[in-house]
Amino acid sequence: MRRWPSGLVLIVAMICAALFVQAQEAPQNTAPYSSNTQLCLDCHSLETPGIVQDWMHSRHARISPATALEQPVNQRRISAARVPDELENTAVGCYECHGLRADQHPDSVEHFGLRISSIVTPTDCAVCHPLELEQYAKSKMGNAWGNLAKNSLFTALVNTIDSPKRLREGELQQLTATDQTKAENCFACHGTKVTFTGTVAVQTDYGEQLRPQYVGWPSNGVGRINPDGSMGSCSSCHPRHGFSIEIARKPHTCGQCHLEPDVPAYNVYLESKHGNIYSSLKQDYDFDAVPWTVGRDFRAPTCAVCHASALQTPEGTLVVERTHDFGSRLWVRIFGLIYAHPQPVLGDTSKIRNADGLSLPTTFDNRPASGFLINEQTADQRQAQMQSLCSLCHGTTHVAGHFARLENTIAETDQMVATATGLMVHAWELGLADKTNPFDEALEIKWISQWLFYASSVRYASAMSGPDYAGFKNGWWYLSKNLREMDKQIKCSETKAK
Amino acid sequence: MRRWPSGLVLIVAMICAALFVQAQEAPQNTAPYSSNTQLCLDCHSLETPGIVQDWMHSRHARISPATALEQPVNQRRISAARVPDELENTAVGCYECHGLRADQHPDSVEHFGLRISSIVTPTDCAVCHPLELEQYAKSKMGNAWGNLAKNSLFTALVNTIDSPKRLREGELQQLTATDQTKAENCFACHGTKVTFTGTVAVQTDYGEQLRPQYVGWPSNGVGRINPDGSMGSCSSCHPRHGFSIEIARKPHTCGQCHLEPDVPAYNVYLESKHGNIYSSLKQDYDFDAVPWTVGRDFRAPTCAVCHASALQTPEGTLVVERTHDFGSRLWVRIFGLIYAHPQPVLGDTSKIRNADGLSLPTTFDNRPASGFLINEQTADQRQAQMQSLCSLCHGTTHVAGHFARLENTIAETDQMVATATGLMVHAWELGLADKTNPFDEALEIKWISQWLFYASSVRYASAMSGPDYAGFKNGWWYLSKNLREMDKQIKCSETKAK
Amino acid sequence: MRRWPSGLVLIVAMICAALFVQAQEAPQNTAPYSSNTQLCLDCHSLETPGIVQDWMHSRHARISPATALEQPVNQRRISAARVPDELENTAVGCYECHGLRADQHPDSVEHFGLRISSIVTPTDCAVCHPLELEQYAKSKMGNAWGNLAKNSLFTALVNTIDSPKRLREGELQQLTATDQTKAENCFACHGTKVTFTGTVAVQTDYGEQLRPQYVGWPSNGVGRINPDGSMGSCSSCHPRHGFSIEIARKPHTCGQCHLEPDVPAYNVYLESKHGNIYSSLKQDYDFDAVPWTVGRDFRAPTCAVCHASALQTPEGTLVVERTHDFGSRLWVRIFGLIYAHPQPVLGDTSKIRNADGLSLPTTFDNRPASGFLINEQTADQRQAQMQSLCSLCHGTTHVAGHFARLENTIAETDQMVATATGLMVHAWELGLADKTNPFDEALEIKWISQWLFYASSVRYASAMSGPDYAGFKNGWWYLSKNLREMDKQIKCSETKAK
Repeated sequence: MRRWPSGLVLIVAMICAALFVQAQEAPQNTAPYSSNTQLCLDCHSLETPGIVQDWMHSRHARISPATALEQPVNQRRISAARVPDELENTAVGCYECHGLRADQHPDSVEHFGLRISSIVTPTDCAVCHPLELEQYAKSKMGNAWGNLAKNSLFTALVNTIDSPKRLREGELQQLTATDQTKAENCFACHGTKVTFTGTVAVQTDYGEQLRPQYVGWPSNGVGRINPDGSMGSCSSCHPRHGFSIEIARKPHTCGQCHLEPDVPAYNVYLESKHGNIYSSLKQDYDFDAVPWTVGRDFRAPTCAVCHASALQTPEGTLVVERTHDFGSRLWVRIFGLIYAHPQPVLGDTSKIRNADGLSLPTTFDNRPASGFLINEQTADQRQAQMQSLCSLCHGTTHVAGHFARLENTIAETDQMVATATGLMVHAWELGLADKTNPFDEALEIKWISQWLFYASSVRYASAMSGPDYAGFKNGWWYLSKNLREMDKQIKCSETKAK
Repeated sequence: MRRWPSGLVLIVAMICAALFVQAQEAPQNTAPYSSNTQLCLDCHSLETPGIVQDWMHSRHARISPATALEQPVNQRRISAARVPDELENTAVGCYECHGLRADQHPDSVEHFGLRISSIVTPTDCAVCHPLELEQYAKSKMGNAWGNLAKNSLFTALVNTIDSPKRLREGELQQLTATDQTKAENCFACHGTKVTFTGTVAVQTDYGEQLRPQYVGWPSNGVGRINPDGSMGSCSSCHPRHGFSIEIARKPHTCGQCHLEPDVPAYNVYLESKHGNIYSSLKQDYDFDAVPWTVGRDFRAPTCAVCHASALQTPEGTLVVERTHDFGSRLWVRIFGLIYAHPQPVLGDTSKIRNADGLSLPTTFDNRPASGFLINEQTADQRQAQMQSLCSLCHGTTHVAGHFARLENTIAETDQMVATATGLMVHAWELGLADKTNPFDEALEIKWISQWLFYASSVRYASAMSGPDYAGFKNGWWYLSKNLREMDKQIKCSETKAK
Repeated sequence: MRRWPSGLVLIVAMICAALFVQAQEAPQNTAPYSSNTQLCLDCHSLETPGIVQDWMHSRHARISPATALEQPVNQRRISAARVPDELENTAVGCYECHGLRADQHPDSVEHFGLRISSIVTPTDCAVCHPLELEQYAKSKMGNAWGNLAKNSLFTALVNTIDSPKRLREGELQQLTATDQTKAENCFACHGTKVTFTGTVAVQTDYGEQLRPQYVGWPSNGVGRINPDGSMGSCSSCHPRHGFSIEIARKPHTCGQCHLEPDVPAYNVYLESKHGNIYSSLKQDYDFDAVPWTVGRDFRAPTCAVCHASALQTPEGTLVVERTHDFGSRLWVRIFGLIYAHPQPVLGDTSKIRNADGLSLPTTFDNRPASGFLINEQTADQRQAQMQSLCSLCHGTTHVAGHFARLENTIAETDQMVATATGLMVHAWELGLADKTNPFDEALEIKWISQWLFYASSVRYASAMSGPDYAGFKNGWWYLSKNLREMDKQIKCSETKAK
């Protein structure tokens, strides 16, 4: 029997041990870079090292689409059945995305012999991830730009808030809100309309280069309108250039926009027992597993668990499919509007018309724009599905009690808004406020706060069990206080008017 | 000399290295499951996989009480000297808790041949953890339901905040606050009274099953009144079914209820240097060690360090015993009431009577209900104990200076409240507000804010060194602003009344 | 060929594997303790075990200055070219710092045969870290005590906020703000003036000991005035006794003072995409590397990346030098004052005089105190440097768009403040408010909020891309609401006055 020298054995054993340790953190695979991507990297690893490094940490940099397609379907992060031949066997690198569909990008430019576009759009991503775009395009988030910009009431609210004001002869005068300010404020989350305005030549260390110019850029909002006409920005939740599923699954991502005072989902979550467990044990969660296994990969849900991810039991039974239409598991819409109401049928809510002809899902006295909202049967199906997710951890009595409270809360908060609206209408009728712009006066601002902040807060607190947001944090404390103050202010003005 | 083949050596070495790495994360022990628990798991690992997995991560799932009792006393997480024979040698599984004391649970039901109760109560936990219940039952937290529900003034405040309001002939009308809303708001932290109302039969995949029905369920509040008459919910801080000491020791747990604006302990902590160090270095803390070693297991305190945990020095000297009466290391009570005051003697504060006959620890002009509050000697002892904890890291001059400031702050915030109370009493006397309900009018709401939010915030900021809560975050900025606004509002009403 | 016994090989391989794993967490070096430090440790490891353990985790405890000086210059954490002989070859222990320059510390005391001072000051730290002190002494943070205490306007504001108020004959009366309250509030961040008042003898287990006594202690504020006359407290950001670069680089440290509502840098950061990535991936960052490598050691910037740390590319090119003058990379100052303005030339801003003779960088109608502020050329240089940092990850079009928006935002928020100031001046002129103290009345408090909170918030939101702070969180929503309420309040008072 031939024997290895023991000294060699020792060395090999040590190397193996070292490799074993390393392997736990190592990339699972390494795909070759395309020659065009290698060209990009030659300069950009020096010029923009941050994003190159970020990409190198990504799955895109390590796994070719061909390898991704070898995975069982339910473990894939890629929804295309196959991808174009030229993308198949290399890492998904700079050129694979920025060089894609160059002729369909009005803003693509010649760049060292390659035609590239700066702004990669969902349509580009959909070459490998078509199902995600299909779902997203139907969602309210995908339509978020138009849902604000194409609704005249919301536009009036935005302009009232975001506009500079000046004094002219003792009177406050509202100027025009600039696109720049709107882009940093409401449209930072909703997304801007990015318009390509041409190229300029700039001098660089590498000679003269063409740079595309835009109005509305930068923007990372979820409903961004891209120069190629597509809607959305995948990097809102999968920030470039890591495009990570881990980040998208962590609540901090959703929390960039879904936060107090108007949409306090993130805050309520963090305060809830689910959030408590996440904050305490997240270091032991596996945020990268697909599908996501209940109880094993995570101990309490994050936003993505309930609203987005594909879930399976530890035995491997699929519980719910992944969706990128993030409202599609919900039956009721509890924020952003005067009253809670059934989820809209379409993601494009600017098409809704209520009985008064306004683009609102209810009238001021809470009659729903029924044709535009999901019917009771669909609502029930969705609620049943959500309850089945709750039931992965909670008993049926617990779940039933929780949902009964939410229903009661929706009714009571709607009543508190109706009372405030009654006071507001009374003030408008008496001429104590001017309805021409229903959003600008001190009393009107209180009325808006009642539904946009306080009623919304209580409903989120109920839906996701974060009690302070039902109480002292924009909750019942404020719902009640605000009514008393509106009442006092109106009575005070009435007295004076007499 | 006989020699092993070197190839085998290599393989064994690699396996050993692998095991070494694995061992660092492995469970310390594995106790057998009882046959009844195994029956539960057979279905529930499919039906409620989340909680089964959560339990499998727990110490309960791995260590039998007998093994736990082999630990040196100061390292035990179990305070019973011994446990019933039938519990001794198995994991603490589904049946061990849900099947315990079934005859003393009015809500226990027959479930596949076993009698089980859904709601495991502190009395069940006390079979192995009796000292914890004994301490907890004496605490204000254990009595939190009654401390709110059995105090008529607090009940009036709760009903004023939590009730729907409607307009009737131009006047705001306060309706009755529902149990459901109260359960989501004030009583979400304080705990509800859970009443068993009977069983219903439901059809399941496994045939007809009985399900207990409750009023007040779900509830996870610290002072929950359970169907068996016991008080409290251990899973408030040790969430089911992991029952982890790690979670209970992390500030996010306390922060679910002890947070701004009324009890900003969590917020002040996070803003403090202690919180800064926790946020920065927590990944290097050992949150599972019992007892907890100062400086080695943690670098700066969390809530539990100062208020609950058993601490030892690195040399193994016990510094302070564990307590589940979380106020018992405190001498002064700085939140929730009009003035700061010595800690109540009893956890049941509804028994307090002040000189005016009200269930309040002071009168409106700050005379203490002395017989119901700890005396100076006890206060001094507790303060000295807390200072000895501070002194594990801080010099005596530092500690003395810190405590002197706190004393000054308590006096000054009490003065700011007394001034607001003076304004309020003045308004009541003039008829500018109606004292019948002292909590509902706009001016009264400002007065409440002065003590419930602003004075409380400044005191926490002082006690735990989070300066913004002494200033711009519900602190002196608001204490001063609120007085000016109350004064202006009263003067304005006086003018009009003339 | 001589062979090792295979059994031995196995054991050695296992040990090596074990050591390999351990090595990843092990200290890099261990310096001997000086005999004096060992004396300290003999008692203090029992008396103050928390700080002894904290120090044992520190680099100071492991690396001697001599070893530190063997590092390549750009990897050093030490800026002295050499250190005094007696410090060179031991760990930087208790005595090395507390025994340093004892004759120059008025508060040093005899302590078991050694002369030590309790309060180690920046001048002590500068023995090894002179460049850091040199930079810090020029910074606004180093001068933070005087920038508040030596500016009469700010002093008036502090006293107005922090003072107890009482009722006398129906009128609110402002008492004197105590040093203790100011130390817990404004001066907790700015730093107190710490004055040595003598020693007292106390009885301890080790016999009678002298303890230094101070006014203004404890204090950890950034501009603390120390008993030796030096300014600052290194442990504000490198908390004692770990003195870690990791903590200083984490945003929680900056966030202790730079937080909403007045300086919402931390809050805006956490809400931004940078903060989102930090919150999601920080566990994979290397917070200890010097210099800090873009994209490899961190994936998105923390505060320190942009404002303080030495950065290099993955190829090792230095991008920017480390600075401890944390405003020195900034061109515009966007908080704390009525209008945004170019950065002051000197860290000591109390020397600024505007055209009206006040210590403010602009007049009330926004004319800059030009001689005291950096000129346009310097501002452009600094902005260009910051843009070069952005360009490590972002394209030039993105960066240009971002900075153009910030410029627009500064102009618009200044206008919103100018409008509020116009209303305020109008009220002062009409006698509706009394300018004697411009900070105490209800209307004046609204005016302060306009610039101190709301305008500041919008600018931070723009500068660091956290949109909610541009909108509903102290942003445009409040800028607009506040103007309407000021206007209403003035008109209401005017009516009444007629």
